[in-house]
Amino acid sequence: MSDLFAGVDLGGTSIKCVLGDEQGKILFRKSIPTESHAGPEAVLSRIGQAINELTHDAGCKPIGLGMGVPGLVDVPLGITRFLPNLTTHWYDIPAAGILAKHVNCPVRLLNDVRMATLGELVFGRGKTVDSMVFIAIGTGIGGGIVIDGKLRLGPVGAAGELGHQTIAPDGPPCGCGNHGCLETLASGTALAAAGIRLMLMGLAPGLHTLVGGDANLVTSELMAEAARQDVPVMDAIMQAADFLAIGVANVMVAIHPDLVVLGGGVANMGDLLFDRIRTQVRQRVRMFPAESVRIEPSDLGSDAGIMGAIALAAQKD
Amino acid sequence: MSDLFAGVDLGGTSIKCVLGDEQGKILFRKSIPTESHAGPEAVLSRIGQAINELTHDAGCKPIGLGMGVPGLVDVPLGITRFLPNLTTHWYDIPAAGILAKHVNCPVRLLNDVRMATLGELVFGRGKTVDSMVFIAIGTGIGGGIVIDGKLRLGPVGAAGELGHQTIAPDGPPCGCGNHGCLETLASGTALAAAGIRLMLMGLAPGLHTLVGGDANLVTSELMAEAARQDVPVMDAIMQAADFLAIGVANVMVAIHPDLVVLGGGVANMGDLLFDRIRTQVRQRVRMFPAESVRIEPSDLGSDAGIMGAIALAAQKD
Repeated sequence: MSDLFAGVDLGGTSIKCVLGDEQGKILFRKSIPTESHAGPEAVLSRIGQAINELTHDAGCKPIGLGMGVPGLVDVPLGITRFLPNLTTHWYDIPAAGILAKHVNCPVRLLNDVRMATLGELVFGRGKTVDSMVFIAIGTGIGGGIVIDGKLRLGPVGAAGELGHQTIAPDGPPCGCGNHGCLETLASGTALAAAGIRLMLMGLAPGLHTLVGGDANLVTSELMAEAARQDVPVMDAIMQAADFLAIGVANVMVAIHPDLVVLGGGVANMGDLLFDRIRTQVRQRVRMFPAESVRIEPSDLGSDAGIMGAIALAAQKD
Repeated sequence: MSDLFAGVDLGGTSIKCVLGDEQGKILFRKSIPTESHAGPEAVLSRIGQAINELTHDAGCKPIGLGMGVPGLVDVPLGITRFLPNLTTHWYDIPAAGILAKHVNCPVRLLNDVRMATLGELVFGRGKTVDSMVFIAIGTGIGGGIVIDGKLRLGPVGAAGELGHQTIAPDGPPCGCGNHGCLETLASGTALAAAGIRLMLMGLAPGLHTLVGGDANLVTSELMAEAARQDVPVMDAIMQAADFLAIGVANVMVAIHPDLVVLGGGVANMGDLLFDRIRTQVRQRVRMFPAESVRIEPSDLGSDAGIMGAIALAAQKD
């Protein structure tokens, strides 16, 4: 049996734990609720327990563990810094060290979207390219950048925060403190808010029917469905796509990557979104043939993060 | 005597030719008019002649030549592609090969701002950093990006075109074919146009006095001077600075460099510009301490390009 590696994707609601091999084959998996209010010690203890249960099933210990977390981490020190979707108790926690004691192997932390970027690079769309941009469009918008085959981290692991490009100079306030960030204009949250607004104003009868008038149920996927009959909903989606295209175009002219991969829930809207983004990017990028950069959906989908965690755990350096 | 290298900076109006050593010491220099209408063969022949005259003065032949050109080049092939400031006769010219025959040494081409980036990296502000962004704010806005000590070129040498980030989605048309590019909002040309507009509308009496009412004489430097008494001119400069800050902030969140260097004529406005840009960047970049990225004027000024050309000529690989 080849060496085993553990991957963890710590989300706001649930935590995915897996054991896999160096080829990215996931052999055992388990999902547990996050319950972050219990505090980092309790959550990390339950993650350790879950990994140890998988180890018991496998009959073999992992030799390394990678964990993606929703926010900023000090990568070399393995300390969580700013995790806005968990509680403030998670700030400045030496999570890698704590978890390592539970699982008895080295633990490496990374921002969850940078981890998914690594997954796409090593096991997904990025396998054959030298440079790649990954953008995850979900509740927020995160990203990762690969140059010369290497994930760009920057001094504090914060490079690749493409959702916080300013796209509308006088745009809406962002959770980060800036305003007009791409995240405020085109995240799943921004899109749902636009859909809810249209529904409340009586401009989206199709969406109203789909969700039974319940604003809490509006998602980007349902908006894509409603857009077949609600023209204003279609307009809102196209506007978000146009903003996404600017975000993509701006990073393209900066680094001219081989490939742009779009993931996250909003990317599940598929061709409706991708066709518009590709067309708009061609309008925006004129300094080189925009067609030279492929814009593709994620290959690994919601497993990109844990696949990246396995890749990180298996990294030699 | 140590090895000699030749550097050429091909501009729209004049061409700088130098001989220097590997330490970036410029030993001999000569400037000739461009006269690009005569066509590439004639211009390249005169460049060859100028270098050969310097070689004669030096009593020693250069072992390599680097030439920066105002536009896009196919770097590996040494072919000019899109040089909007020269004539269309310059498209698809194997300039490296032609010039090499005149000077009897290998010739390497690069976009002029990427060349200046290399100059700042090897001999200027970038000597002590791993990652750097250079933005030249002049007639247009160009740029260059250094990651892990290496100038990022991308597949066709077009990475770093930071002046063509879309900053105002519905902004003015750009020469590149897009609209709302940073270049349309904050280049020396855009700034002068704003100054001329204010002067023509009677809102800039100070500027009017400085240029004797001649629109052709309006420059960003004179606007900085006029701004001491003309409030609307000051507002125009601050608005350009705010747009520049967005361009800087966006590339900062994407790659989190150690250093951002601003060069070109507009950067000569000094503290007036830099103080505003630094303040605005701190407002925009919230995902990591914006203060961790130094924003500094160019160290080499108008010599950055030829210093880069010498560095390129001296590169081993």
